[in-house]
Amino acid sequence: MAFKQRAEAFVLGLQDAICQALEGVEAQHEEVGQGAPGTFREDRWERPGGGGGRSRVLEGGRVLEKAGVNVSAVWGEVPDAVKAQMPGDGDTFFATGVSLVLHPRNPHAPTTHANFRYLERGSVGWFGGGSDLTPYVLYEDDARHFHHTLRAACQAGAGAHADLYQRFKDWCDTYFWNTHRHEARGVGGIFFDHLRPETAGFPTDLDALWTFWTSAAESFLPAYLPILLRRKDTPATEAERTWQLVRRGRYVEFNLLHDRGTKFGLQTQGRIESIFMSLPPLVRWDYDVQVVPGSREAALLEVLAHPRDWT
Amino acid sequence: MAFKQRAEAFVLGLQDAICQALEGVEAQHEEVGQGAPGTFREDRWERPGGGGGRSRVLEGGRVLEKAGVNVSAVWGEVPDAVKAQMPGDGDTFFATGVSLVLHPRNPHAPTTHANFRYLERGSVGWFGGGSDLTPYVLYEDDARHFHHTLRAACQAGAGAHADLYQRFKDWCDTYFWNTHRHEARGVGGIFFDHLRPETAGFPTDLDALWTFWTSAAESFLPAYLPILLRRKDTPATEAERTWQLVRRGRYVEFNLLHDRGTKFGLQTQGRIESIFMSLPPLVRWDYDVQVVPGSREAALLEVLAHPRDWT
Repeated sequence: MAFKQRAEAFVLGLQDAICQALEGVEAQHEEVGQGAPGTFREDRWERPGGGGGRSRVLEGGRVLEKAGVNVSAVWGEVPDAVKAQMPGDGDTFFATGVSLVLHPRNPHAPTTHANFRYLERGSVGWFGGGSDLTPYVLYEDDARHFHHTLRAACQAGAGAHADLYQRFKDWCDTYFWNTHRHEARGVGGIFFDHLRPETAGFPTDLDALWTFWTSAAESFLPAYLPILLRRKDTPATEAERTWQLVRRGRYVEFNLLHDRGTKFGLQTQGRIESIFMSLPPLVRWDYDVQVVPGSREAALLEVLAHPRDWT
Repeated sequence: MAFKQRAEAFVLGLQDAICQALEGVEAQHEEVGQGAPGTFREDRWERPGGGGGRSRVLEGGRVLEKAGVNVSAVWGEVPDAVKAQMPGDGDTFFATGVSLVLHPRNPHAPTTHANFRYLERGSVGWFGGGSDLTPYVLYEDDARHFHHTLRAACQAGAGAHADLYQRFKDWCDTYFWNTHRHEARGVGGIFFDHLRPETAGFPTDLDALWTFWTSAAESFLPAYLPILLRRKDTPATEAERTWQLVRRGRYVEFNLLHDRGTKFGLQTQGRIESIFMSLPPLVRWDYDVQVVPGSREAALLEVLAHPRDWT
């Protein structure tokens, strides 16, 4: 089977697995006075130029304030606006991927983002993707667990070429950098793009890269779910909730000012509501927010200003 | 006196007048159970490359949930990033202006933005500016009052060249267009840039343009204040508040994705907290929000999709 079909089937399956797991967390979370467990609403959409997608969004859940897990498979003419940025040759492209952002309600539970995609232009195919973690209250254990899980998946997928984790961890720190704030969006993870045999940095082929890519993608749930489960019930103060909403503002700033995925979506006339499902449900912008030296907020900012080795 | 000094003195005076008027509104607004009237906090800052500013921000007021009225006067080397966009010649620039955004608490009271600036590069000086209105609940009377006041000010300032209002009204509709949403940010106002004798479209000099520019700037209070006063006490439902927060999300999208002023500020290493004072205090992003046909929300969207003649 061609990689196009394999990749589309894979991301559809991953979307199912992730949504099922998250609905399971919602169903098992019981707290007095809260509404029904959150469930995903599904929207199928078609792209005028070719292809379409299956968006799934959960809003107002017990654990997840907002969660979007989207799959798309689109094709057609390469839009002029993105021609220069795309490897390959020719005027037609194909792109499929799964993209998710989870915004938990509890400020102690971190926001997370993941994206795994396969693209082709003319005769050239490549993989991209990654997953990363954005805490509001810093738990070093969580960052270590997340990164250790990703490193193990990179090693399992890439065999002896174990430096892939380090390369893609560094790339993640560079990519998710909020230049105008001089800080990272979160505590990182992995990020990679344009990954094909010629650029992998070691002798390989698309089949081997497929193994790496699927292994990295399948590590998302084991990397994130344990963190969500151990933080979702932590008692939170009003001040922590306010801090979470302020920090979500930084998330919006990154996505609208710097994120290439958002730009690509807008330039290729993607479905607006699917692109913007990443934006947090409720956000604050307060003027000139300062943190108390020595506080947990200050500890978070220190790590965001100086990305750390977590493994 | 050189235009540089005159312009800086003018915008400082306008900042004083506007802040005083708004603090007056806060002080006179009495409602049971609300906190103290809002007052402006002032921050003076210096720009490493030359110049500085006087930022004034009011948060958590009775009438104004967040308001920023900033003045700056900066100079130095023209940053490479903005060289191509700037008229004039030479490697040094001067820029002074007042910039304000007011976010009232009540969803029936519109958000407003205004900016009046004078720039020089080498031997060339020019004016820019404008003011515009962003309602959440559409009151056609408000839009008409706002535009009539601006039109009268344009006519008073530009004498027989009365088409300035129409030109700058159209420019405003074009500029504040949220391309990715296919709608205007609000019901418009006026917008102009690079206004100098050579581009004014009629025989004039900088002195005559000064008269126009100050007249337009001084029309801000009479254009906006009566609207704020007649809407601030309108009873609002929970649904109207939610709608206001959703629509504030569009305001953020415009400012971060499209606004040239924000881009210019970031590219010239401006003070982040002063640039981002325009962002609303509290914002929602809900998935795929739909409005009921025939509702007031639908009426607003209709006007935003098809900018109207209000005079």
